[in-house]
Amino acid sequence: MGLFRPSTKRKLLLAGMLLLFFYAVYVMVPCDDKSKYVMVPKEKTRYIYGDKNLAIPYGDDMEIIFIGGMPRSGTTLMRVMLDAHPDVRCGEETRVIPRILGMRTQWERAPVEKKRLEAAGVTGEVLDSAVRAFILEIVAKHGEAAPRLCNKDPFTLKSAIYLSQQFPRSKFILMIRDGRAVVHSIITRKVTISGFDLKSYRACLQKWNVAMETMYSQCLRVGSDRCMPVYYEQLALHPREWMLKIVKFLDLPWNETVLHHEDYIGEKGGISLSRVEKSTDQVIKPVNIEALSKWVGQIPEEVVNDMHAIAPMLMTLGYDPHANPPNYGKPDPEVADNTLHIRTNSEFWKQKEKDIFDKLPEVAVPVRAKAEPAQAHREMDKSVGSMNKSSGLR
Amino acid sequence: MGLFRPSTKRKLLLAGMLLLFFYAVYVMVPCDDKSKYVMVPKEKTRYIYGDKNLAIPYGDDMEIIFIGGMPRSGTTLMRVMLDAHPDVRCGEETRVIPRILGMRTQWERAPVEKKRLEAAGVTGEVLDSAVRAFILEIVAKHGEAAPRLCNKDPFTLKSAIYLSQQFPRSKFILMIRDGRAVVHSIITRKVTISGFDLKSYRACLQKWNVAMETMYSQCLRVGSDRCMPVYYEQLALHPREWMLKIVKFLDLPWNETVLHHEDYIGEKGGISLSRVEKSTDQVIKPVNIEALSKWVGQIPEEVVNDMHAIAPMLMTLGYDPHANPPNYGKPDPEVADNTLHIRTNSEFWKQKEKDIFDKLPEVAVPVRAKAEPAQAHREMDKSVGSMNKSSGLR
Repeated sequence: MGLFRPSTKRKLLLAGMLLLFFYAVYVMVPCDDKSKYVMVPKEKTRYIYGDKNLAIPYGDDMEIIFIGGMPRSGTTLMRVMLDAHPDVRCGEETRVIPRILGMRTQWERAPVEKKRLEAAGVTGEVLDSAVRAFILEIVAKHGEAAPRLCNKDPFTLKSAIYLSQQFPRSKFILMIRDGRAVVHSIITRKVTISGFDLKSYRACLQKWNVAMETMYSQCLRVGSDRCMPVYYEQLALHPREWMLKIVKFLDLPWNETVLHHEDYIGEKGGISLSRVEKSTDQVIKPVNIEALSKWVGQIPEEVVNDMHAIAPMLMTLGYDPHANPPNYGKPDPEVADNTLHIRTNSEFWKQKEKDIFDKLPEVAVPVRAKAEPAQAHREMDKSVGSMNKSSGLR
Repeated sequence: MGLFRPSTKRKLLLAGMLLLFFYAVYVMVPCDDKSKYVMVPKEKTRYIYGDKNLAIPYGDDMEIIFIGGMPRSGTTLMRVMLDAHPDVRCGEETRVIPRILGMRTQWERAPVEKKRLEAAGVTGEVLDSAVRAFILEIVAKHGEAAPRLCNKDPFTLKSAIYLSQQFPRSKFILMIRDGRAVVHSIITRKVTISGFDLKSYRACLQKWNVAMETMYSQCLRVGSDRCMPVYYEQLALHPREWMLKIVKFLDLPWNETVLHHEDYIGEKGGISLSRVEKSTDQVIKPVNIEALSKWVGQIPEEVVNDMHAIAPMLMTLGYDPHANPPNYGKPDPEVADNTLHIRTNSEFWKQKEKDIFDKLPEVAVPVRAKAEPAQAHREMDKSVGSMNKSSGLR
């Protein structure tokens, strides 16, 4: 019943076996110039358990929200308004995320160190994967679990391009505010930022200008589908209009809670505040325009006169450098009400502030702890570029 | 056929359904004081592909090997001997692992910063998980894939306890060497280590003493099942005896390759060297005792006379502070042969060194790059405590 004679059959079989054998050898012997093994992360399950064991996966491809901008530009207001949304957790400043980003930049920019690292196999790609893993753990774990996670560390927006590459589905909100108001707030509230000379309006405005140049251009380069500039003044004057836009930009379902953040402070799943952040006493109040024009009349005349030259970004961002104040617009009736209430009931709000602070976890912040070496502190300032209080709380 | 009358049956059924209904409500409505959601990492598969797509899982529970000790104590020899083992990859110094460990320590030790971080939910636990993720990515990815990964950054052993907690199955090898030889090598090879004054034997020996005190006590506290002190002199004199012990300690199968590391330099799956590491020119040679007693006669007399007081750790570790040199022991015949060969064929070994260096990836290390700010460089020194060359590569 054979197509071939037995001897031909045997030869064919032999040839087939030989071929198979060579193929097996080819498959099994690794090429000399290629690595034999492959590293795969063990898919161990890292859960953060809640009451009902509802589980939310986290990974590099999450739609993380990064909120940033100059300190004192409404970044805290933005984060608490979003935090009030039931799907979003937008927690306190982590401080360590700008730090690791600063380290990454330092490694990249120091050519000697970069070569050394590359010689050791620690390439940019390897570093990125470590930095990404670091950031992800902090973002995922430093607060309650939620379907949409959000990070607010003001200066992270200086690394918007880098972050947009590391987290390909992340989105960014850049808070913009009149530089004169920002600097007035920094100086009067004694917010120490590395490189900022709190005695000089001129120097601070120049620094504001440089920082905004960086952040604004990074935001533009990330693109309008992933980075949205938000003007603090407009958010405060017209919260509904702007939150509608922002919530849509973030692909979130609309929820009225974002317009009443003050009702969710300290609640589980609501808003978590920190005693040691500068804006905590402000964001316990409903959206208002108390702070909009406080700076008018407080800036030295020779600085006011040079304003267009000192801070050209004012003009770029649409603020008239010679209007004192410029016309920011008229508040919505709700906001006007809030503002009036806050102005005429200062005792009520002081008491409310006290009540809320009393409930916040105790954190002893000494004026300057002796055990903390001044050097370490300065270094932290340098690489973080983040806010530090010079004199403890308030 | 009923145990109960139909009406009783109906009542029971109703009661049962009511109970079930209340239970369902109880189960489904989350308690007010607990978080609703849970964060779970997406089990995305991160592979490092090799030729045959052989995949090795990596995770916190890997048996990572950490090699450390004072620089110039045989840490590079140890890592290349293990790297020669087919199951182990023990690559170049990563430099960034000590850096992140330094940051972690800084955060822990600065009370103000610690409180601030905790107020923001960035607890020690959250930081640890981020630091762990960072280290793991670097260890897994900065070199070829292998079933057993190993990291060698000398000063990581200062954090042996911390690392042993973060990676519960990790093991540690602490390299110990006569402090006089270490300091002589540091000074003559101009190895800049932060805090070390290269002009003073006395100061360097004191620094060696402090560092060894920390590392040795950490190693003891980690325990002999997970941290093994290895004397460089003994490893060089009796490589077979000691590698047998070390390989057993690490639960590796014995392989003769570990005694012939010099045969595997530059091969895939073999040993990867870096132009910018100080010991590269030495570890291309077979195990020898060329460097054992070079220090004798080189240390100022007043330092030699005070040796027991300057560096009490010498005595603790079993080195006679007043023997110059102490009797380290007699080399195995193989080692004596190697040493003789190296001494009598210096031209051959110089040529071999040149050949190997020529094949290493080109890294331009300028004497001092202008683009690298001196400040950044110093800071790096400070927090890493790692080796930096003061004057580029020879």
